Amino acid sequence: MEMMKAAVFVEKNRIVLQDKPVPPIGPLDALIRITTTTICGTDVHILKGEYPVAPGLTIGHEPVGIIEKLGSAVSGFHEGQRVIAGAITPSGHSYACLCGCSSQDGPDNAHGFKATGGWKFGNLIDGCQAEYVRVPDAMANLSPVPDGLSDEQVLMCPDIMSTGFSGAERAGIQIGDSVVVFALGPIGLCAVAGARLKGASTIIGVDSIKVRQDMARRLGATHIVDFTQGDPVEQIMALTRGRGVDAAIEALGIQATFESALRVLRPGGCLSSLGVYSSDLRIPLDAFSAGLGDKQIITTLCPGGKERMRRLMDVVASGSVDLKPLVTHRFKLDDIEAAYELFAHQRDGVMKVAITP
Amino acid sequence: MEMMKAAVFVEKNRIVLQDKPVPPIGPLDALIRITTTTICGTDVHILKGEYPVAPGLTIGHEPVGIIEKLGSAVSGFHEGQRVIAGAITPSGHSYACLCGCSSQDGPDNAHGFKATGGWKFGNLIDGCQAEYVRVPDAMANLSPVPDGLSDEQVLMCPDIMSTGFSGAERAGIQIGDSVVVFALGPIGLCAVAGARLKGASTIIGVDSIKVRQDMARRLGATHIVDFTQGDPVEQIMALTRGRGVDAAIEALGIQATFESALRVLRPGGCLSSLGVYSSDLRIPLDAFSAGLGDKQIITTLCPGGKERMRRLMDVVASGSVDLKPLVTHRFKLDDIEAAYELFAHQRDGVMKVAITP
Amino acid sequence: MEMMKAAVFVEKNRIVLQDKPVPPIGPLDALIRITTTTICGTDVHILKGEYPVAPGLTIGHEPVGIIEKLGSAVSGFHEGQRVIAGAITPSGHSYACLCGCSSQDGPDNAHGFKATGGWKFGNLIDGCQAEYVRVPDAMANLSPVPDGLSDEQVLMCPDIMSTGFSGAERAGIQIGDSVVVFALGPIGLCAVAGARLKGASTIIGVDSIKVRQDMARRLGATHIVDFTQGDPVEQIMALTRGRGVDAAIEALGIQATFESALRVLRPGGCLSSLGVYSSDLRIPLDAFSAGLGDKQIITTLCPGGKERMRRLMDVVASGSVDLKPLVTHRFKLDDIEAAYELFAHQRDGVMKVAITP
Amino acid sequence: MEMMKAAVFVEKNRIVLQDKPVPPIGPLDALIRITTTTICGTDVHILKGEYPVAPGLTIGHEPVGIIEKLGSAVSGFHEGQRVIAGAITPSGHSYACLCGCSSQDGPDNAHGFKATGGWKFGNLIDGCQAEYVRVPDAMANLSPVPDGLSDEQVLMCPDIMSTGFSGAERAGIQIGDSVVVFALGPIGLCAVAGARLKGASTIIGVDSIKVRQDMARRLGATHIVDFTQGDPVEQIMALTRGRGVDAAIEALGIQATFESALRVLRPGGCLSSLGVYSSDLRIPLDAFSAGLGDKQIITTLCPGGKERMRRLMDVVASGSVDLKPLVTHRFKLDDIEAAYELFAHQRDGVMKVAITP
Repeated sequence: MEMMKAAVFVEKNRIVLQDKPVPPIGPLDALIRITTTTICGTDVHILKGEYPVAPGLTIGHEPVGIIEKLGSAVSGFHEGQRVIAGAITPSGHSYACLCGCSSQDGPDNAHGFKATGGWKFGNLIDGCQAEYVRVPDAMANLSPVPDGLSDEQVLMCPDIMSTGFSGAERAGIQIGDSVVVFALGPIGLCAVAGARLKGASTIIGVDSIKVRQDMARRLGATHIVDFTQGDPVEQIMALTRGRGVDAAIEALGIQATFESALRVLRPGGCLSSLGVYSSDLRIPLDAFSAGLGDKQIITTLCPGGKERMRRLMDVVASGSVDLKPLVTHRFKLDDIEAAYELFAHQRDGVMKVAITP
Repeated sequence: MEMMKAAVFVEKNRIVLQDKPVPPIGPLDALIRITTTTICGTDVHILKGEYPVAPGLTIGHEPVGIIEKLGSAVSGFHEGQRVIAGAITPSGHSYACLCGCSSQDGPDNAHGFKATGGWKFGNLIDGCQAEYVRVPDAMANLSPVPDGLSDEQVLMCPDIMSTGFSGAERAGIQIGDSVVVFALGPIGLCAVAGARLKGASTIIGVDSIKVRQDMARRLGATHIVDFTQGDPVEQIMALTRGRGVDAAIEALGIQATFESALRVLRPGGCLSSLGVYSSDLRIPLDAFSAGLGDKQIITTLCPGGKERMRRLMDVVASGSVDLKPLVTHRFKLDDIEAAYELFAHQRDGVMKVAITP
Repeated sequence: MEMMKAAVFVEKNRIVLQDKPVPPIGPLDALIRITTTTICGTDVHILKGEYPVAPGLTIGHEPVGIIEKLGSAVSGFHEGQRVIAGAITPSGHSYACLCGCSSQDGPDNAHGFKATGGWKFGNLIDGCQAEYVRVPDAMANLSPVPDGLSDEQVLMCPDIMSTGFSGAERAGIQIGDSVVVFALGPIGLCAVAGARLKGASTIIGVDSIKVRQDMARRLGATHIVDFTQGDPVEQIMALTRGRGVDAAIEALGIQATFESALRVLRPGGCLSSLGVYSSDLRIPLDAFSAGLGDKQIITTLCPGGKERMRRLMDVVASGSVDLKPLVTHRFKLDDIEAAYELFAHQRDGVMKVAITP
Repeated sequence: MEMMKAAVFVEKNRIVLQDKPVPPIGPLDALIRITTTTICGTDVHILKGEYPVAPGLTIGHEPVGIIEKLGSAVSGFHEGQRVIAGAITPSGHSYACLCGCSSQDGPDNAHGFKATGGWKFGNLIDGCQAEYVRVPDAMANLSPVPDGLSDEQVLMCPDIMSTGFSGAERAGIQIGDSVVVFALGPIGLCAVAGARLKGASTIIGVDSIKVRQDMARRLGATHIVDFTQGDPVEQIMALTRGRGVDAAIEALGIQATFESALRVLRPGGCLSSLGVYSSDLRIPLDAFSAGLGDKQIITTLCPGGKERMRRLMDVVASGSVDLKPLVTHRFKLDDIEAAYELFAHQRDGVMKVAITP
């Protein structure tokens, strides 16, 4: 049995590099040799025990690599091909997938849906912070990398680009909309870029960290609100001359940002929520207009599948969005524990790290 | 100055019939002589002081009547025409109207939106529990009643039919969907009818009152859940064999129904909220899948305007939905205080009352 | 090698029953023993040589049957299960499927789309007018029949119900719409039922055959226009008092109905086209308002996949649409040539035939 | 009676500057003193007698100016305010407006819709190539110009920006789509900018004129196809590696571009038509996949109304689209006949002219 290195969740506050067998594959799977991967904020939630996964699981859901082996029933790909796969790997054939809700992909029984069931890597099955990863339902998920794009150029496609853009897409942003994005971490920054791509003319980023504010401006923010400089709700209402925003994107996952997002929405607007929450939320009666304000709250889990990845890589190739500057630090897989240490504590201006086996 | 009788909010727990001047009209208005109107659950909220309006205001927002007089700038209608107007009377020319959000119609300044601003009758201006009512922006709001339809047949169009149907419409119900409606008051019953009209194949009504359950079955409910006979969430999950519903319509406005609606939604489903809430709401973390379940919460205020009214009256004329049986009691305007007494206490199996000046 | 009987296209005007080997299956396939199937108008196009298929191909794309054998990579089903599959059998994993266009499913190369590529049975691969049929991509396509539904009750789901309903769905029909359906063959009749399910209040069926007019009324038509009794465009404009219809569904596939559909559309309306055309079409300048009328022409190929089938069978089970009366004649597979003879010439008031091996 | 100068359609091939009375206004109108206007391709159709208007009509539908006088029933604006109005001036209160189809605004009778009825200026009523113009339904149509924007910066908003963008909007362009725009006149160039604003990653412009190709690249085209250098269909299929485009925007109005647009569409794609056609169109059977390709043909007339104008001016103010370079020539109103001469013959690299009274 061939062995490999993998970042494994052992217990709360301990993700460690271990030797594990290279995963065997079934007829519908592919084995990918990882060339580059990264760490996500969600992985930090796992590390801290805030999002539960099974001890012994390999973490990581953002793979760039090379096809090492294909399952016996897989066609349309060949070994040696350079590919990515989304963080979410829909089967393509579940009831959830077939009704357009592939991120909530469940087993094929009467139910057919499972909350967050499409997120398999580093959640339900071994992930990709390792030398190799098994990709389930390979025909729906392997997405060839166009010639000329580097690993780091496509490294954001599997999760943060897909998630951030979906925040703008699900908000139904129209040309000329005003949009606010609460929190300018990697997801929020991608939501800013997504809002610009969808035609928003006013894009307000909310954060207090200078380097993130600068990156937001670079990606399309027209205004920055620093919540340490005054009530963000008041600042945003002033910027929109009392009208409020057409869409508010929540990209942090706490009560304060959720509630502020609801407050700055114009009647009829959409709160597009991307954050991973860790406690109950409260909807204040006034911010909700007693239920009569035509407001919408829409939550979204990262869209996956090879067609999504193809489109995102096309956006990168077109040059209209450049996320490479988000990669601020680089580590070998052997040093991934140090990468977690840096990333979890947000030291040294880190935005995203690149991990190479 | 000609005088008329009108039901006026005096103070908490006092709506009384008073003499008031017949309202003067401006160039864009019409004066309607009311032939039939009704009392809404929202009027009871006003009566109880739960929804604030100005003392002295005439209550009521569901007018059927005859054009008595037209403003100088109004064309396309003639005096003596039999019409209804929606509970919501959009101007047609505000920023809110022109971006498809007419119930949140605000004044024409930079803001342009006002939460619930399209609801004018018995909220911002004098309402129609009176002998006459002034209809603002008459050209956008007067809707001629087709020959052959009685006052009582169209009495539900201005509010409960429009509101109930919108609960189904905004949920985006598709052919073959499963839908649950929480609370089978007049709005919930119309939501049941709306879900059937939109093609749902499984429609579950939740209520404990026999007469409402029966009416729900008549309007299209395929299953009834009585929450006094066991946990409604468990009953609904059993009825859908663990899948949950595609859409849950909240038609009461309390935490228990809102929360249950969220719990019975399949991942990716839509909670369509119609209730008027009177306190903050709580979103339980698990029912919300930590924000990762692709769930939507959509609130809706009754759609108005003459095109909406025309369509609803067409539905009535086609015979596909018959809401006349909802009118269980009839009163003269002179006896409206008795009507409030009956309706507010839900005595004698009352569903809706007809009030005739 | 086990043999079976199958209806095979030999050459123009000759579909004959032949002995053929029972199809072998691959890892993703299922073998279904057919218990009931039917003949479609498209099969008659094939018979007449108007739609080209390869000589030697087994015809038929509407299977009801029992799982005989499952491919090695198929899970979630078991042998002996009673199932249907759609006329269109999307793979679930192609680019076309993953961008929501599964009827145009193509091979997994750079292209990823193929016009009508999702229609495999009796078009690209052997069909189901036979004792057995191979179902490709079984996990995406096998749909268990609910207990209590007969073969004939679900026989319309694979094609005509899915196609007819999609004509109404893609037209974006709203509550209160007026809709016309041109031609009341099986597809048109299902479009009538679909328009009713989507909430149309005025549904005009156009046909000259009495039995079809009667069936249309039963399925929801509120008006019938007989084109032998006067210009159908004039009749429809009169019925809508000069307004025109919100949606016009074309269910025949000839210039006259296509053009009339365009003429009776109100500005901003939608022509939803279901017909299989056999020659170029002409768009008259005036009917098209010189391209400035905000009109839409939307064509649709039957939606397939197990989720679609599940929903349609749910509609049948709910009792809201009953298509069993469309089955006017029954034949053994051994007599299928006689069935073609009857059906192709539309003798004896035939609507649909049931074929049982 | 005060007099003014106005460009009047006299007969085929004669638009001349004449003295006419300053238009009187009704209670819902406004009188605008024109500061800048322009000539549209449609005006040239009128000049050539290809689009019929009444002799004596003042031409022009793209006004920038100052409120001179307000009708007695108009509120929310004040004299002296700098405004634009859209080429299309919806009433706000018609049935068409209230069902979201305001460009097809008709009189308030049973019909309620009129093809292209929202286009009033220079079509149904006197237009704005004059010193003054009457704006109907002023409250729905006057849109204040933000401080800091010049006349020429907002001159494209009333028509070509709104029309071009709508071609992209109605095509439902998604992030990562491939789009082709046929013909790079002012409308086509704005469609290119609109496709970019909606997130297309591949934008192919088709034209043979160098200056237009260059402008298209500047506005977002990623590829140019010159139809004099080879069959445009083949070139586009090659650029998309055989896949075809997700959306094809027709911006000329002739059979050749319409047909090519249909041919290069992937199955399931959308042909978004903006051109003003002057003869019947032919849909080739193969390009239409016999009606089974899930293709859509959507026509759009320029959206108007003050909210649309507000949004477009916001886009200009945000700096994301700069259309000022389209203004290649400037004329005084006194010289408008020379401007027509230049523009109608497309001399001297003209794209748009600015006309100032």
